[in-house]
Amino acid sequence: MKTYLDCIPCFFKQAIRAAKILNIDELKTKKLLDELGLLINQMPLESTPPELGRIIYGKIRDLTGNPDPYKNLKQKDIKEALRLYPNIKELISRSVDPLMTAIKVAIAGNSIDFAIDTDCDIEDELNKTLKQQFAINNFGQFKYYLNNTYEILYIGDNAGESVFDKILIEQLNKPTIYVVREIPVINDVTYQDAIDSGLGDVATIVSSGSDAPGLVLKTCSNEFLKIYENSKFIISKGQGNYEALSDEKKNIFFLLKAKCPVIVRDLDVSVGDIIFKGINAE
Amino acid sequence: MKTYLDCIPCFFKQAIRAAKILNIDELKTKKLLDELGLLINQMPLESTPPELGRIIYGKIRDLTGNPDPYKNLKQKDIKEALRLYPNIKELISRSVDPLMTAIKVAIAGNSIDFAIDTDCDIEDELNKTLKQQFAINNFGQFKYYLNNTYEILYIGDNAGESVFDKILIEQLNKPTIYVVREIPVINDVTYQDAIDSGLGDVATIVSSGSDAPGLVLKTCSNEFLKIYENSKFIISKGQGNYEALSDEKKNIFFLLKAKCPVIVRDLDVSVGDIIFKGINAE
Repeated sequence: MKTYLDCIPCFFKQAIRAAKILNIDELKTKKLLDELGLLINQMPLESTPPELGRIIYGKIRDLTGNPDPYKNLKQKDIKEALRLYPNIKELISRSVDPLMTAIKVAIAGNSIDFAIDTDCDIEDELNKTLKQQFAINNFGQFKYYLNNTYEILYIGDNAGESVFDKILIEQLNKPTIYVVREIPVINDVTYQDAIDSGLGDVATIVSSGSDAPGLVLKTCSNEFLKIYENSKFIISKGQGNYEALSDEKKNIFFLLKAKCPVIVRDLDVSVGDIIFKGINAE
Repeated sequence: MKTYLDCIPCFFKQAIRAAKILNIDELKTKKLLDELGLLINQMPLESTPPELGRIIYGKIRDLTGNPDPYKNLKQKDIKEALRLYPNIKELISRSVDPLMTAIKVAIAGNSIDFAIDTDCDIEDELNKTLKQQFAINNFGQFKYYLNNTYEILYIGDNAGESVFDKILIEQLNKPTIYVVREIPVINDVTYQDAIDSGLGDVATIVSSGSDAPGLVLKTCSNEFLKIYENSKFIISKGQGNYEALSDEKKNIFFLLKAKCPVIVRDLDVSVGDIIFKGINAE
């Protein structure tokens, strides 16, 4: 997905929000915005939003001098999601369509997103999402491709959400590579977060090699790109990965909650809608 | 009022909104945002918001090659306000407190503000405002200072609103200098707009010499600054003038509708509240 004009004020809002969460003072935050301002003209609209996001959150890391400024928040969310894990497993086992329920659970986890909002009650969000209808639903197509694949490439998004990804991977029950960010960016899931979420028990955890808040391929490692190129069936979680991959020609199923006006316009849906959209290689 | 961090993303949003209204294409708008980005680091938070607003809207003027890009919209609003004029005069003459009603009418006119929103039904806004309670109401203080002044300096804000200013000036019934912007900026009232609004019949119309969307004194002419310094009783309309003058040490009464989160925080009120706030020379 290209960057829309409306993304530009939003980058500044995200930087201010991140600075608030991390207790960065007003003058330092202003300096961050000054630096962002200087970058705008180096960022054509043809770039995807996570490409600039990568630069913003890199600058925030530099400014705090903390390589993982959201660590405590991520650990809190993973802990809360793990607390809910047994009940969700029980719920899925009793449901009429366990795979569909597990997909909705994985999407509910996508509400844990600090780029958009820090106040999210995971349990509330879960109950709401389970009752919600999809605005885009390519479940039939998903099941067809799933039946014909040996292996799944699953691109993670946020920490905490990762526990719900584990639940979906358990339900899919196929060899899975779970992709994490190379280093911490916002609250996105890293190798350690994936381990803490229990993903090591159900998937091979692999770093994309990238520090962007979305799978921006040109920032990924060659090792990862080989895996990506060979994969025939991809599940991509969240907005950032959608923004980075929506123009690819591969079998990708995007699971996300539409949270911003730009995504909403791109997908022709409403804010808060849940999306299960497939694109394919043909 | 100082510039808050939250004003910075809003400057970009305002530029995008203005570009949309003026049918500036996406690439040219991006170029405008690029240029804005380069200015952020030259704008300390100690500046008032209209100081940067002045630069933004100057750039928009340059980009369109049109010295008065909002001309048609301004004329439409003046025409609509003039259509309502006889009924409003009738309403005021029948009201229990004609001065208070005229003040509310003048504030209702402040809803005509293209920096914030272009969709405003003036008549609806008027009816709503007349029923509304003030969040800050210094009417008692206002009447005291009014009784003790010979002359009024009245700082206009938007075109269209200017017709409602005329109604308040008629009600105040004292020699009045009505201050307009030197050249068009957004839909702010200029000399010609004031003439078209009928203000020539009730006030001496004077240019501030400034092209900022708020009375930024350092951008005003020496001629105007002499008038300002000698004035003992000032009425200031709207957000932009409030932002520029709120730290002055003079008898100023601010009439405005609080439209943005930053003003709301500065005044400790809610979005949509109507404000009648006096500051004074002592």
